[in-house]
Amino acid sequence: MKAWEGVIAAYRERLPLPEETPAISLLEGNTPLVPSVALREALPGDLDIFFKCEGLNPTGSFKDRGMVVAFARALARKASVCLCASTGNTAASAAAYAARSGLRCIVLLPEGSIARGKLAQAAMHGAKIVSVAGPFDNAMRMAQELVLQRSEIELVNSVNPFRIEGQKTAAFEVSEALGDAPDFHFLPVGNAGNITAYWKGYREYAEVGKISRLPRMVGFQAAGAAPIVEGRIITDPQTMASAIRIGNPASWKGAIAAATESGGWIAAVTDEEILDAYQFLARREGIFVEPASAAAVAGLRKEADGGRIPPGSRIVVTLTGHGLKDPDVAARVAAPEPIVIAPALAELLRAIEA
Amino acid sequence: MKAWEGVIAAYRERLPLPEETPAISLLEGNTPLVPSVALREALPGDLDIFFKCEGLNPTGSFKDRGMVVAFARALARKASVCLCASTGNTAASAAAYAARSGLRCIVLLPEGSIARGKLAQAAMHGAKIVSVAGPFDNAMRMAQELVLQRSEIELVNSVNPFRIEGQKTAAFEVSEALGDAPDFHFLPVGNAGNITAYWKGYREYAEVGKISRLPRMVGFQAAGAAPIVEGRIITDPQTMASAIRIGNPASWKGAIAAATESGGWIAAVTDEEILDAYQFLARREGIFVEPASAAAVAGLRKEADGGRIPPGSRIVVTLTGHGLKDPDVAARVAAPEPIVIAPALAELLRAIEA
Repeated sequence: MKAWEGVIAAYRERLPLPEETPAISLLEGNTPLVPSVALREALPGDLDIFFKCEGLNPTGSFKDRGMVVAFARALARKASVCLCASTGNTAASAAAYAARSGLRCIVLLPEGSIARGKLAQAAMHGAKIVSVAGPFDNAMRMAQELVLQRSEIELVNSVNPFRIEGQKTAAFEVSEALGDAPDFHFLPVGNAGNITAYWKGYREYAEVGKISRLPRMVGFQAAGAAPIVEGRIITDPQTMASAIRIGNPASWKGAIAAATESGGWIAAVTDEEILDAYQFLARREGIFVEPASAAAVAGLRKEADGGRIPPGSRIVVTLTGHGLKDPDVAARVAAPEPIVIAPALAELLRAIEA
Repeated sequence: MKAWEGVIAAYRERLPLPEETPAISLLEGNTPLVPSVALREALPGDLDIFFKCEGLNPTGSFKDRGMVVAFARALARKASVCLCASTGNTAASAAAYAARSGLRCIVLLPEGSIARGKLAQAAMHGAKIVSVAGPFDNAMRMAQELVLQRSEIELVNSVNPFRIEGQKTAAFEVSEALGDAPDFHFLPVGNAGNITAYWKGYREYAEVGKISRLPRMVGFQAAGAAPIVEGRIITDPQTMASAIRIGNPASWKGAIAAATESGGWIAAVTDEEILDAYQFLARREGIFVEPASAAAVAGLRKEADGGRIPPGSRIVVTLTGHGLKDPDVAARVAAPEPIVIAPALAELLRAIEA
């Protein structure tokens, strides 16, 4: 098996990068496509379900795929600073690639609402962290204003088109692993860059004949942060799934296009349904994800009964980030104080039978 | 590129598993071998350095490689419960594979001294967590006593020989990625199963002619938890690198054999050196690891000046676990309170220039 060399080396001919662009890499991509054992058993319709585990990218989320391409582009144009507004995963990824590339990194976070693991990452990688009062969309707007004034700064949010280009490679990988596109592709929708990117990737692979069909794209927002579902900007989005707590998605139109053109849809799931799916994945599939990742699984559990998914369908669900990104939610949901015992066998036997 | 199917499917002919053993998997293994950019530049001797990023296994550490083989074995013999004593990574891995396989999982932890991310994982995956007073070695001894009384319980610590069998596959992957063995293989040493396993893997590949030479195996313990270096059991091991805080390693003899037979050595590094390497990796290579992983990098930084490593040597360093495993150390080392600003450009400009 040839060793994996990262997203740019693997897919350079499908990325809009000039030949001289440096092939920087943390060996992102090439993530596992894990077959479901428990969910397929639990749901009706004999569905053939796979999880694309994007939490096994270098910084623990799918963001690395697009970030490496955005940084290659930034280096090619000799930018010296990168900037992003982020609910956490983008910040962690940008900070890591900035560290590797020798760029300064500035991250703007919505005040007081990002997961602890992500903050630790951005700080460890040396990013300058600025917390902006109000919701995510304030931070996003500030970032866009700043780059208009400073040409040495590269904005590496998903409004940066190179991000979407990199993220589309996940659709290539899924297609290669399965030998064709699946019938459905389910994923969580926050800023909506990922559903936009997958759809672009599938269309490109269909155009060149690498796949024989296109999947239906199905996205899920958290009920308290569902601007696309409700058709309006949400000024104070609420969900404990911090990675999709976004009221005005940057790729709103891309998400609508993906759903409409593919014959798919975008719907909402409650925080309770998300937490339930989050625990199901960990306890039954052995896969620990961050809460936002569980939104698409929650959606699949609802839809499987609803008549929109034909029996026997092949479904890929993108799990966007690793559970270790957000240990506090895990601790709240699952962690009791451990039982403490003296080192004596009788005490151990009592404890495990309790 | 053929999709990866996990450690058992990839290396079944080199694992001592009967044919009918179920090929369970979370698609562990196949982890990136990332070339160093900053460390090779910082060190003398034009060293050719690679990082084997084992933190990108499903549960965030190298333990998954051995755990999947131990569970395959446990399922084959129809065990219904798995048990381990753990500083955290083993517990997280055991709990995940137990969830996937439908076994109960009991983990014994040293009281009050495991990293937060790891505890969250084990709890999320539904393990029963029992905290045993005193150092790790108390928990280990209790686990060994318990399995003597209960045949339905499988002990999945690294005293379980199937764990070592699974872990040796990392040496296979390194050999394949580089086309031969490196000159040196550096890694942290805690319970010492990993150095034992890599050495076994390299020897097996040399025996069948897949590699033309053997690497020197070089291990590093934390100075406050260095039983092998000091040649005595440490009753109260101390280091902030919790994954290698072990005073009486299970694979002590294996580690000595690996170092001696390969012409390598085992030495100690201080917590200060470990933290320094930990920050260097995050800030300069863009790789966030748990503190224990940085022990081998700290060791390499010391040894590169010391005359034992010929110029131009090819060196692989195993980074055993992801930084997200231990967000509290990261927060202590790197995370300032973020600067909070109102959403106004003038404030942002002041903040980023401060």
